[in-house]
Amino acid sequence: MSADAGRLIGVGVGPGDPELVTLKALRALASAAVIAYFAKAGRDSHARAIAADHLRPGTIELPLEYPVTTELPKCSAGYRDAIANFYDGAAAKIAAHLDAGLTVAVLCEGDPLFYGSYMHLHARLASRFATEIVAGVSGMAGCWSAAAMPIAQGDDVFTVLPATLAEAELARRLADTDAAVVMKVGRHLPKLRRALQASGRLHRALYVERGTMAQAKIVPLSAKCDDEAPYFAVVLLPGWAQRP
Amino acid sequence: MSADAGRLIGVGVGPGDPELVTLKALRALASAAVIAYFAKAGRDSHARAIAADHLRPGTIELPLEYPVTTELPKCSAGYRDAIANFYDGAAAKIAAHLDAGLTVAVLCEGDPLFYGSYMHLHARLASRFATEIVAGVSGMAGCWSAAAMPIAQGDDVFTVLPATLAEAELARRLADTDAAVVMKVGRHLPKLRRALQASGRLHRALYVERGTMAQAKIVPLSAKCDDEAPYFAVVLLPGWAQRP
Repeated sequence: MSADAGRLIGVGVGPGDPELVTLKALRALASAAVIAYFAKAGRDSHARAIAADHLRPGTIELPLEYPVTTELPKCSAGYRDAIANFYDGAAAKIAAHLDAGLTVAVLCEGDPLFYGSYMHLHARLASRFATEIVAGVSGMAGCWSAAAMPIAQGDDVFTVLPATLAEAELARRLADTDAAVVMKVGRHLPKLRRALQASGRLHRALYVERGTMAQAKIVPLSAKCDDEAPYFAVVLLPGWAQRP
Repeated sequence: MSADAGRLIGVGVGPGDPELVTLKALRALASAAVIAYFAKAGRDSHARAIAADHLRPGTIELPLEYPVTTELPKCSAGYRDAIANFYDGAAAKIAAHLDAGLTVAVLCEGDPLFYGSYMHLHARLASRFATEIVAGVSGMAGCWSAAAMPIAQGDDVFTVLPATLAEAELARRLADTDAAVVMKVGRHLPKLRRALQASGRLHRALYVERGTMAQAKIVPLSAKCDDEAPYFAVVLLPGWAQRP
């Protein structure tokens, strides 16, 4: 590592509410000459929107736009190559700033190392540059807090499951845990409902959409009459069965 | 609920680093007439220490001291009664302030609803008083960030396990997840080592002690030569096996 190179900081900015940003994140933003963030092509970055009030004038902004890969199946070599090339390119852009001695803060929704895109940059750059991680409030903590739902306690086993799993696998894992958060619900909601039913847990499940935003929708899943759900909706399954 | 009663706020103050407190937590502290926090009998409260620089002069402080129950087995009725009585009494003390129209902020290490003692107060008071939850950075996020270890990505299944589980059950669950955090390691470390070995995961496990403090100890578990571990030590098992 060069002593003259800049520092790479993965900055968790929390689940959406701009007030759920930490003092450490604000200090990192203030120390960075360059602010980088991921965004869907043609869309605003959520992470940048969360931190918008805290960006200094004169900061260099480096948007990293995901490639449009909707035509490729996610398990295909073509998709994997396109994504890998994208992260390679994004890392190279950041490395150019670091080589120039500039500190780069990468804004991350939630926590940088918990299901975050920053990890792809970290894996490519941490061996060459000094790095720092600023932990953030996770998206799921934002959801169970908005719902005021105690999620796990004591010796509970807690599991995070992607709704992309096969129905039988979802049902098996839901039956085998005390508490769970199911992510990436979207079009998988009918399957997830069946898996919760099969595991005997449907009556306790809570559906949460836009958990930490003003338009949050929080309802028992059994009371949700349709199967419409955005990709980022989550289902919460509380543990803590034995309350003293 | 009485319109004149105060509000109960569960305030996550993060994993230990005072800079990992959110702006929302600071606002909650500033709005509260009473600050409550749990502490072991005769010890300082960790949560209070984290927030100490942000407490206003004149705030009423309400320490809630856990009863000394070391002589009782954790699964015994005596232990459960003692703990339930303690939480009943703590809730009553807080309710007295709320009834008097004062807002009470309960300081919580990490996140209030994720393995936190605040949940016991919430369960006893939320039906009678207006409540608010301020999500916090979890202790485990503090640990994997201090270790700069990407913990879970993409469609990973992520599991939180208490080290108190039986050895075979630990081994089964460690083999059945992509990523894991094992909590409450303490005297269970030799058993946890064997379970990680049996599940073929020992070589990837990271041992973390006092994760977000200046004296943090972070080593591959396979390189830790002794079996000494404090109760709050954690073991991290990273997922993200398929990096594009």
